[in-house]
Amino acid sequence: MSKGIVVLSGGLDSTTLLHYIVKEHVEDGVVALSFNYGQRHSKELECAAYNAKLLKVEHKVIDISFLSEVVKDVSALAGHSSVEMPTITQAKGDAQPVTYVPNRNMILLNIAVAVAESIGAEAVFYGAQAHDLYGYWDCTKGFVQRLNEVLQLNRKSPVRIYAPFVDYSKAAVVALGAKLGVPFGRTWSCYKGGEKACGTCPTCAERLRAFAESGVKEELEYE
Amino acid sequence: MSKGIVVLSGGLDSTTLLHYIVKEHVEDGVVALSFNYGQRHSKELECAAYNAKLLKVEHKVIDISFLSEVVKDVSALAGHSSVEMPTITQAKGDAQPVTYVPNRNMILLNIAVAVAESIGAEAVFYGAQAHDLYGYWDCTKGFVQRLNEVLQLNRKSPVRIYAPFVDYSKAAVVALGAKLGVPFGRTWSCYKGGEKACGTCPTCAERLRAFAESGVKEELEYE
Repeated sequence: MSKGIVVLSGGLDSTTLLHYIVKEHVEDGVVALSFNYGQRHSKELECAAYNAKLLKVEHKVIDISFLSEVVKDVSALAGHSSVEMPTITQAKGDAQPVTYVPNRNMILLNIAVAVAESIGAEAVFYGAQAHDLYGYWDCTKGFVQRLNEVLQLNRKSPVRIYAPFVDYSKAAVVALGAKLGVPFGRTWSCYKGGEKACGTCPTCAERLRAFAESGVKEELEYE
Repeated sequence: MSKGIVVLSGGLDSTTLLHYIVKEHVEDGVVALSFNYGQRHSKELECAAYNAKLLKVEHKVIDISFLSEVVKDVSALAGHSSVEMPTITQAKGDAQPVTYVPNRNMILLNIAVAVAESIGAEAVFYGAQAHDLYGYWDCTKGFVQRLNEVLQLNRKSPVRIYAPFVDYSKAAVVALGAKLGVPFGRTWSCYKGGEKACGTCPTCAERLRAFAESGVKEELEYE
C-alpha cells in the first residue's frame, strides 16, 4: 500500500486504526482526516490532533458544519440538537438509534475519497467495527463492499475503502490497541460534551464493556 | 412519489429536471437543493434561485466551500484553481477531463440523501444525462444503480436516487425543456465566470450543439 487516508474521529476505534495503519501498513505516508460538524463531543477532535501529532502524521480537519443544520431535528448527536440523548437501555432494539446521523458516514467517507483522489492516495481506512452493527447500517461489511463497487467505476483514479476492523468486536479493537500502545486516555467516545466521560450514554456503555471483556485497563476518567 | 429533493445546479439539465419533476411527478412538495463550493461559475446559483422561485418551490443552498480547498490543485472547476480551463478540443479523449471535480457528485448526492432522510423525503432527483458520459464516471446509469444499492442497505429510511434523463442526449433534454417552458436564458452552463457565456469551454460547446441539434432557440447571450 503506498499512501492512505485514515478517517479519524478521535474515538477509540479510529485512533487504534491510525496506530495500526501507521505502524504496520502504509509505506509512503498517512494523512489523518477529521471532521468538524458541530458534534456535541468536540473533545474527540482534540484527541484526534493529539494522536496524529504523536504519530507524526499530517492531520487535516475539514469543516462540514452544514451537516449539523441539516440533521438537527432528527439526530441527538448534532450540536444544539432538539433530540435528547438516550441511555443504552432506551437505544436497544431501535431500527436506528437517535444517535444515528442521516447518511453521515457516506458523506465523510466520500469526502475522504475526494481528498485521496486529490493527493494521489489509493486507500481510505475506516474504523467501523462489528459491534457498531447494533444500529448503524453504514458501519457494516456489506456497506463497505457496495460503496467500493461504486468507487471502482472511476476510470482514472479509483480509491478503495478498507475497514480492517469490520469483523472485530470492540473488545478485540481494545486488545489490539493495547498491543500497539494506543494512549486510551487520549481517545474520546462519550456522546455528551462533559469534562469527564458520562459512563451512561450508549457509546460509554459499549466502551466500558469492551475494556471489561478484553481485560485491558481503561485510562479515561468517568463522572 | 410523495416528496422529493431535486439537486439543482442552475445549469440546463438540472433546471429542466426541476421543471419536469414539479410539473409531472411529485405530489407533496419538492425541495430544490443547490451547493455553493466556490465554483468559478457562481452565476448558476443565481439561475437556480430564479427557477426555484418561478416554480414556487423551497430552495436550500448548502455551503460546502471546503471542497474547493480539497481539490484546488486537480480541478479547473474550483474557484481560484491553478488548473487552466481547457477548450473542448483539449478535453476530448481524456479519461477524466480537468473539469472533473474528484468525487464531487458522490458528495453532493449523499448530502442530498441526508437532507431527504432528515425531512422524510424518499427520492433524490439527479440531472445526469447521457452526453455527460464523455468523461464523468459519476454521471452514468451504472453509477446511479450502484449508489442505490448502497443506499438500500439503510434499514429504516432508504432514499432512492432517480436520474430520469440518464439515457437522454443533451439535445433531448433541451427539447423537453422547450416543451415545459423552461426559461433557457435563466440557466447557466459556462464554466467560466464571465458576464456572458464564453461559447468555447467544453460545456458551452456541448450546450450550443444541443440547441443546434434540437432546433430549439437558445436564449442565452454569448461573447
